Amino acid sequence: MKTKALLITIILLGTVSLTAQRRVLNMPDIPGYVTLKCDFHSHTVFSDGNVWPTQRVGEAWRDGLDALAITDHIEYQPHKKFIPADQNAAWKIAKNVAADYNIILVHGAEITRSMPPGHLNALFIQDADSLDKPDFMQVVEAAVKQGAFIQYNHPGWTSQQPDGIPRLYPVHMELIAKGWLHGIEYFNEYETYRNDTVIEMCREHKLAVMGNSDIHGVISETYMEPEHTHRPVTLVFAKERTMESLREAMFAGRTAVWHADSLAGFEQFTGPLFRAAVKAGVPYKDDGKSIFFEIWNHSDLPMKLTGGPEGAPANLTLPANKGVMVKADRRYLSQPLTYDVSNITTGSGTVLRAEITVPVK
Amino acid sequence: MKTKALLITIILLGTVSLTAQRRVLNMPDIPGYVTLKCDFHSHTVFSDGNVWPTQRVGEAWRDGLDALAITDHIEYQPHKKFIPADQNAAWKIAKNVAADYNIILVHGAEITRSMPPGHLNALFIQDADSLDKPDFMQVVEAAVKQGAFIQYNHPGWTSQQPDGIPRLYPVHMELIAKGWLHGIEYFNEYETYRNDTVIEMCREHKLAVMGNSDIHGVISETYMEPEHTHRPVTLVFAKERTMESLREAMFAGRTAVWHADSLAGFEQFTGPLFRAAVKAGVPYKDDGKSIFFEIWNHSDLPMKLTGGPEGAPANLTLPANKGVMVKADRRYLSQPLTYDVSNITTGSGTVLRAEITVPVK
Amino acid sequence: MKTKALLITIILLGTVSLTAQRRVLNMPDIPGYVTLKCDFHSHTVFSDGNVWPTQRVGEAWRDGLDALAITDHIEYQPHKKFIPADQNAAWKIAKNVAADYNIILVHGAEITRSMPPGHLNALFIQDADSLDKPDFMQVVEAAVKQGAFIQYNHPGWTSQQPDGIPRLYPVHMELIAKGWLHGIEYFNEYETYRNDTVIEMCREHKLAVMGNSDIHGVISETYMEPEHTHRPVTLVFAKERTMESLREAMFAGRTAVWHADSLAGFEQFTGPLFRAAVKAGVPYKDDGKSIFFEIWNHSDLPMKLTGGPEGAPANLTLPANKGVMVKADRRYLSQPLTYDVSNITTGSGTVLRAEITVPVK
Amino acid sequence: MKTKALLITIILLGTVSLTAQRRVLNMPDIPGYVTLKCDFHSHTVFSDGNVWPTQRVGEAWRDGLDALAITDHIEYQPHKKFIPADQNAAWKIAKNVAADYNIILVHGAEITRSMPPGHLNALFIQDADSLDKPDFMQVVEAAVKQGAFIQYNHPGWTSQQPDGIPRLYPVHMELIAKGWLHGIEYFNEYETYRNDTVIEMCREHKLAVMGNSDIHGVISETYMEPEHTHRPVTLVFAKERTMESLREAMFAGRTAVWHADSLAGFEQFTGPLFRAAVKAGVPYKDDGKSIFFEIWNHSDLPMKLTGGPEGAPANLTLPANKGVMVKADRRYLSQPLTYDVSNITTGSGTVLRAEITVPVK
Repeated sequence: MKTKALLITIILLGTVSLTAQRRVLNMPDIPGYVTLKCDFHSHTVFSDGNVWPTQRVGEAWRDGLDALAITDHIEYQPHKKFIPADQNAAWKIAKNVAADYNIILVHGAEITRSMPPGHLNALFIQDADSLDKPDFMQVVEAAVKQGAFIQYNHPGWTSQQPDGIPRLYPVHMELIAKGWLHGIEYFNEYETYRNDTVIEMCREHKLAVMGNSDIHGVISETYMEPEHTHRPVTLVFAKERTMESLREAMFAGRTAVWHADSLAGFEQFTGPLFRAAVKAGVPYKDDGKSIFFEIWNHSDLPMKLTGGPEGAPANLTLPANKGVMVKADRRYLSQPLTYDVSNITTGSGTVLRAEITVPVK
Repeated sequence: MKTKALLITIILLGTVSLTAQRRVLNMPDIPGYVTLKCDFHSHTVFSDGNVWPTQRVGEAWRDGLDALAITDHIEYQPHKKFIPADQNAAWKIAKNVAADYNIILVHGAEITRSMPPGHLNALFIQDADSLDKPDFMQVVEAAVKQGAFIQYNHPGWTSQQPDGIPRLYPVHMELIAKGWLHGIEYFNEYETYRNDTVIEMCREHKLAVMGNSDIHGVISETYMEPEHTHRPVTLVFAKERTMESLREAMFAGRTAVWHADSLAGFEQFTGPLFRAAVKAGVPYKDDGKSIFFEIWNHSDLPMKLTGGPEGAPANLTLPANKGVMVKADRRYLSQPLTYDVSNITTGSGTVLRAEITVPVK
Repeated sequence: MKTKALLITIILLGTVSLTAQRRVLNMPDIPGYVTLKCDFHSHTVFSDGNVWPTQRVGEAWRDGLDALAITDHIEYQPHKKFIPADQNAAWKIAKNVAADYNIILVHGAEITRSMPPGHLNALFIQDADSLDKPDFMQVVEAAVKQGAFIQYNHPGWTSQQPDGIPRLYPVHMELIAKGWLHGIEYFNEYETYRNDTVIEMCREHKLAVMGNSDIHGVISETYMEPEHTHRPVTLVFAKERTMESLREAMFAGRTAVWHADSLAGFEQFTGPLFRAAVKAGVPYKDDGKSIFFEIWNHSDLPMKLTGGPEGAPANLTLPANKGVMVKADRRYLSQPLTYDVSNITTGSGTVLRAEITVPVK
Repeated sequence: MKTKALLITIILLGTVSLTAQRRVLNMPDIPGYVTLKCDFHSHTVFSDGNVWPTQRVGEAWRDGLDALAITDHIEYQPHKKFIPADQNAAWKIAKNVAADYNIILVHGAEITRSMPPGHLNALFIQDADSLDKPDFMQVVEAAVKQGAFIQYNHPGWTSQQPDGIPRLYPVHMELIAKGWLHGIEYFNEYETYRNDTVIEMCREHKLAVMGNSDIHGVISETYMEPEHTHRPVTLVFAKERTMESLREAMFAGRTAVWHADSLAGFEQFTGPLFRAAVKAGVPYKDDGKSIFFEIWNHSDLPMKLTGGPEGAPANLTLPANKGVMVKADRRYLSQPLTYDVSNITTGSGTVLRAEITVPVK
């Protein structure tokens, strides 16, 4: 029978088809941690998605992800007429393929309620069927008992929050008080609600900043160049690339969000990322007044520098994986160039302030 | 709830997303007929495919198709554990969406047996459940009674026909004798078995030459540029763009196959297609010895001309939707240029022989 | 010797290389006129450009242009040390190649002064050497006696007009009074000065609205996808595709400007262009309350419709050369849909108001 | 005045335009040497090229080259009517711009004769005017006295060598005997003459294997995706990135040629390059019979592996800058996988034989 759908077959036979290529998502590690690229929000035909669970694993592999969660809606099953509800079906179908592909598959489910509390993902669960019950707090409690990380999804989604402003309602505050809320989606799909406030909520309540695709259709049709070169991902700074390390890092709040050409996260993570990616070269020319040197960006994220210092370019865009040439005053042989990185958000209204040091041979 | 999977919603609200664009498949009409672009072989999660039926309709719409058949395997149901068999499920789910998208959705099913007879698609059926029975000839008879067009699928598929040579076995000859076989797949997915013999089988037995994707995964991931700019399609030369005209044309054998940068079909159809697509311009320069003129190719199919006549370019590639400049002897003001079109197959070992006439103002 | 630079050689031998393809610039003709795509401003090594004149012809051919002017600076010759001044050199070198390529090559030169009067192109001249003299008005007079069309270049160029606001200085008013000024550049290269005022100057003084590349480097490196899919061009609505008709149309002011995804020009030309490009199809579904139909855009210019009427999409982007599906109230079977076309500028602060009529079979 | 041609201006102001991006040509260093990417054959308007010398520097910078030679024909000056001969003009114009861009600009010229001796590039010269004299051997002697590296260009060019077979004529043997020949072009532009014999000539006579563009037109128009992702380059394995180290490495014969998706060179250089680029990962799955692991290709050169060993994929294409998954017998935990790299030529009829070792954690 034709089983082209099982990508794994194609690859193991050594015939690498077009679809069997793993993309590199180039985002460097930071001191002490590996930078895992993760999507913790996706759907399949087992709720209102359009694809079979193995497609999600194949997409994750091709997209260069380290970890993926399939999080079908528990309470919303529009395909029920054709597919009987087994809340763990996607997990059962995908877990072996994920192992073959070396993708960390996080068992998850989406608790799907009106606002408040809205939608929440339970990640690292053991059994989704056990979360299918009426009382919301009992569901979260059951998930937490299974060791779940609870994520508040798209808090500014206008279908549930018409003004687009993310809010922590009393029910969310109650979850926080109990230690039952661990992260909030700063970015979802490609929505542009007032997500800047989320980062401050996370700072205040020590929650992880999350960003995910919430994909229902097909990834490659949803994130198309030139506008979108990759799906939104949560970067997780883990001690190593294992399920346990991933989980530890998330509960510890070591995350950032990379969506389109933007990054968002606390400075303690985005600062080291910038410094790992951006390197000035030794000046190759010195005319006594100015130095000429290259600045390279070793990442897939363009860096948009603004507010440059005197005697240096005021604005400087460092294209992804490329170098630019810079001419600057000789004073920068002994002091760093300081810029605002306008596409790295560190808080509500604040962006990363970064230093670039020109090395002397 | 999030229902991004339903493209129709997005479009009807007038917010045209990236995925909501209909591509033009530029292949001209021929005198007397409209040229319908069709894919008569595709799968969904209801057999061994990876997507929900509405995804197939969305793909067809974006790909610029006029007609689509979803043809899930009747006898091969690897997802049975999670999805109970309803052989008409895909049809029920997709038909209304197809109407909204103006796609002619052909009700179909794939009769899935060992070789011989191998796999056959029953197209334009009424009820796929009625085809789920053990005896092969009874199944075909039931389909034919419903008005089905029967297509012999991928006859050279090496999993069933290890030498890759398409054959008409006694069972196929029996179908032909009864008038129960109407077309053979010349091209399937992107296989390169010995398909050139198929066209001669079709000529001899007055069957339609067919070409389809047999898609299991996602179209946009399977046919990627630069190698593959579009899925394989059956071109059907119909009196008008309706289900009935489509069916009439197929039974009448008015088809051709367009796969990658190649076309295959009888000269009575490929000849007019070439002439509708390729037009020389009035010479814009005449130096007394030679004329200078453009040749334009008004189609998505590059035309690869070889064996040119004396005093004209020996070889000439006419890129899709572009023009080239040609310098040729003045004699071609009064006689046509004759070329072999090396990428239009008209039979086993034969290609289209085409004339290009230089117009005089 | 290696002479790959001469593209013509390659093509006439029939070996169509990658570079020897002519792109179609898809912009329809309008009733009574052919729509010529033209660039009336370009440079070569004979002033401060980077390429040999034949490269400009090859670029124009590949870009699908009908007409080109090479307009080297008369008074600015930074390569003088290596290339002695012959103001007609580019013309002499390029004219035969242009004839072979069927490009209408307009003999031109750029009169290059401080502001005012700034820079002006003299087009359709006979001898550029005769324009190399100190007195500005004498230069223009000499050009006009040769039959020249005089174009006021980039009036808002910040190097000469720091506030970016185009102005007609007394010297320009004097030219207008004498009938010695015939067009103004609304768009140049990819600058975004306050060009909207130019269209009103042109309306008031009955001048042609012009848009050109002013290319110094290489076209394909300057206008790169995805930001720029083509160079800016002046569309000229001519009776036929000849030098004489081109000239007649320009003096008559029958022009518009197409830059990136925008069009600018008087409604008497942009209105017919829109109507020639955009066509609604016969509704393919009518559910008694709404009609479903396609709208196709047969041009390379996306159409951005806003301000839609009640019972129809408020906003609608019609991608270039594609179709979109629309659902609208049945009332539009008997009355047109009216939209603002936000990317077609017809004056300072005004855009094209366009009607789309849904045809009944 | 408009001086967009001077890219340097744009960059130093910090406004990085589309054209002002430096591409990374990803080809790793090898133990002991940096891998310099070089083009030692190019033309400008000062012989039969189409561009000004600064354009060549800009192209080299954008293409990620380390070194460039402009090698205008000494004896072939078709633009003489408009440009008086100054054999050093291109060098004078380009050298300062090259310094600003950090491109090692090699002073060169092309000695242009009928075959034999055909065309030869003199590289690292001091004065090209001194090479403009009738006697061929005197010209080479003059060049050698200036310290020149002499390269025999495109020996199989069919315009001079109709059978396409590279030959060493008596005059070349005389040069070799005197130590006046140092390299031969294995690859030029995108010609496909019998270049495999060149590598054996170089091996026998201890000459450097060279590959260059011989560009006359515009690089970005000549090497276009998808067929050509980069110009042909000579890889030079130098002690450091300086003019002197470059020259030392070339005279020592430490070179290889990278053209399209192919590499050619002696195994002592291509072997280490392969090993620096291709790395297997620690197996992430071991089912007791097979191991599952990734192989990554950290270079822009796809690696086409054939002739694989028992219990492993027979063929394996490693796409550029991507990873593939491999399943292989457990025996490869203790012995390397051995493949032919079919796109790395090491001699006439031989390709690189490479080992891939699967690391144990």
